[in-house]
Amino acid sequence: MTQAESDLPFDLAKLDRLAEVAVNVGLGLKEGQELIVTCPSTALPFLRRVVAAAYRAGASLVTPIISDAEITLARYRHAPDGSFDKAPAWLYAGMAEAFEAGAARMAIVADDPMLLADEEPGKVSRAGRANSAAYQPALAKIAGFDINWTIAAFPGQAWAKRMFPDVSAEEAQGKLADAIFAASRLENNDPVEAWAKHNAQLRSRCDWLNEQRFDALHYSGPGTDFTLGLAQDHKWKGGASEAKNGIICNPNIPTEEVFTTPDSRRADGTVRATKPLSHQGAMIEGIEVRFEGGRIVEATCTRGEEVFQELIATDEGASRLGEVALVPHSSPISASGLLYYNTLFDENASCHIAQGQCYSDCFIDGAKLSKEEIAEKGGNSSLIHVDWMIGSGEIDIDGIREDGTRVPVMRGGEWAS
Amino acid sequence: MTQAESDLPFDLAKLDRLAEVAVNVGLGLKEGQELIVTCPSTALPFLRRVVAAAYRAGASLVTPIISDAEITLARYRHAPDGSFDKAPAWLYAGMAEAFEAGAARMAIVADDPMLLADEEPGKVSRAGRANSAAYQPALAKIAGFDINWTIAAFPGQAWAKRMFPDVSAEEAQGKLADAIFAASRLENNDPVEAWAKHNAQLRSRCDWLNEQRFDALHYSGPGTDFTLGLAQDHKWKGGASEAKNGIICNPNIPTEEVFTTPDSRRADGTVRATKPLSHQGAMIEGIEVRFEGGRIVEATCTRGEEVFQELIATDEGASRLGEVALVPHSSPISASGLLYYNTLFDENASCHIAQGQCYSDCFIDGAKLSKEEIAEKGGNSSLIHVDWMIGSGEIDIDGIREDGTRVPVMRGGEWAS
Ligand SMILES: [Zn+2]
Ligand SMILES: [Zn+2]
Ligand SMILES: [Zn+2]
Ligand SMILES: [Zn+2]
Repeated sequence: MTQAESDLPFDLAKLDRLAEVAVNVGLGLKEGQELIVTCPSTALPFLRRVVAAAYRAGASLVTPIISDAEITLARYRHAPDGSFDKAPAWLYAGMAEAFEAGAARMAIVADDPMLLADEEPGKVSRAGRANSAAYQPALAKIAGFDINWTIAAFPGQAWAKRMFPDVSAEEAQGKLADAIFAASRLENNDPVEAWAKHNAQLRSRCDWLNEQRFDALHYSGPGTDFTLGLAQDHKWKGGASEAKNGIICNPNIPTEEVFTTPDSRRADGTVRATKPLSHQGAMIEGIEVRFEGGRIVEATCTRGEEVFQELIATDEGASRLGEVALVPHSSPISASGLLYYNTLFDENASCHIAQGQCYSDCFIDGAKLSKEEIAEKGGNSSLIHVDWMIGSGEIDIDGIREDGTRVPVMRGGEWAS
Repeated sequence: MTQAESDLPFDLAKLDRLAEVAVNVGLGLKEGQELIVTCPSTALPFLRRVVAAAYRAGASLVTPIISDAEITLARYRHAPDGSFDKAPAWLYAGMAEAFEAGAARMAIVADDPMLLADEEPGKVSRAGRANSAAYQPALAKIAGFDINWTIAAFPGQAWAKRMFPDVSAEEAQGKLADAIFAASRLENNDPVEAWAKHNAQLRSRCDWLNEQRFDALHYSGPGTDFTLGLAQDHKWKGGASEAKNGIICNPNIPTEEVFTTPDSRRADGTVRATKPLSHQGAMIEGIEVRFEGGRIVEATCTRGEEVFQELIATDEGASRLGEVALVPHSSPISASGLLYYNTLFDENASCHIAQGQCYSDCFIDGAKLSKEEIAEKGGNSSLIHVDWMIGSGEIDIDGIREDGTRVPVMRGGEWAS
């Protein structure tokens, strides 16, 4: 279903602002730059504003790649079994080529994150794997921060109904819109200024963590007693940062996290997830894992365990960590108390870790490092990058220096200093 | 604007049938084949049915490339001037690669053909030229009939309002739907059978013309006195035909024409268009041209002359002919008396010629001919292929044999025998 603009139950002026923020803060789009935007059909009213804002910012060409939830479902309902090992490699290779030639990248999220919840898990995971493999050349340029990119969100109706099942579709969409607009800091008349202030705060957190040069972090809380080594020459990042093409962008709108690359060989102990993970439409709940030498050696879930097991079996790097991120429990998204079923929001509500591919720009002078050098320093590589939440108001985190000294980083889910 | 399905003022069962015809008659889609569908967002209700029908027919993967009229306009309203020499070459190169690997191709037309009518003609033609150049590798595989492909139409509301400006949007859309469904032969319960019968009739016309082996055609009518040489070893085609990948398809739904490749060096005399030409959103009316030695040496139009002049100046082949097609004046589309502003329909209402690229499969054993051999036999090559209408109830056509014998082909716009 696509909605007429006049049926959208929220202030369209806010949607205009969100488009401006996504293009000018999220991408920092440069005059003359090309842009590729992926977008679900349900978000067309937002996409149109993004395209206009991008051209006003001087984009030379904007190419939207529009998906459609019903078309995605039609495949699961009607396609022959062999289809689920296929992906449009030609399209992703072309995107990689465009990034190589300087194009920026925006992803708009808007669909029901649980779209595939009722489909056959085997098909969902095979299709996901085929897609990840085909997308790899393009993803490498994003994960490697070769180009400026961003993800922004539109309050699609099916997503809203998933979050607010007990109210009307219209009311649900209005509530999700309020939440997205607030988290995206559109409340005042100058959202670009609000973002500048927010980015400065995130930067000062990163500066402190980078001065500390912790060798490891130790997490303790209910079900969690976990020591995570940080990669050699790791760098904490958050908010605005500079892509290898020299453009300063905000890869996530909204964002609350500061994050870096853990050592994929040094993770030990038990970790309990504090929120459900919605992965390719499946709900994974109650994740509990035990790490040994960086690798998950035991994993149980109270729901969706099969999907989680398949996920961490994708390749060698999928059972190891590629990201560690800190978010105070009082962050606006956490304070909303909502479960978004979407990583863009849920990861910004909570401290998290990610299975799979690391960000090579989370190293000092990361741009100059080869794949081999990154691996030597502890950087992980994988077809996947999947975040899950381990933060709460009950978690304490210590930083551990090389000499064993411990420094409080978080207490009861908040910054210790 | 995209419409909810429940707002569509026509029988959705017919839309299901049209999807079946497009996939199974239009494409003749083969089990295990990939499919790329280009489609305007306004036709999503049809696209969803096409994707489902394609998967039911055994498609391994369907990749929709969805455009949006408002996004197209946003470029003209907001983009910097340099944008209009750009095109997404990476996307078209990828499509060419997919066709090379065996993918089929469907194009859905649904938008207002006059969408760009109020935009700057220079920008429209520059964007068109950049697009044609970038699309060339993919178009070559379609024009060379390497793969099975088809074009089908959905009654978009803006297109309908363009055709029926004096009635409500809803009534207009209903009228266009009736016209499209009738022309696409969906009236009875077995449209696939109706198409088999129609294809057999077109085949018998082609057989007769191929037996005649005319050296040239002579057209006479108001403003027209025109002799057009046919290419050496030309072959008349129409309706269903076999692509080089061995799949029998109907490249146009609907189709009424039989057509072949003229000799690009032998066209002499004057021709007057009998219908307006809607090209990339511009209306071109009252075309009168004089050919000498295959080339347009004089051209005037009563409207849109600048666009037409730029069009035929695209490259050397753009001022020469690549197609000649015969359609009886009593064809169902002609009988509807409507101007569709869209070549898919308007060319099937009338005899026509096309500037630009020829179809290499309109030669005997065309699949085996090199580009050079095709040129030697008179086949034209160009970045463009633009049809315009020269048929009416007042046109007479003679076939001329090599010995000068004349055989009546059409009289008063109808088949002479
Ligand atoms: Zn993160
Ligand atoms: Zn992450
Ligand atoms: Zn034709
Ligand atoms: Zn044609």
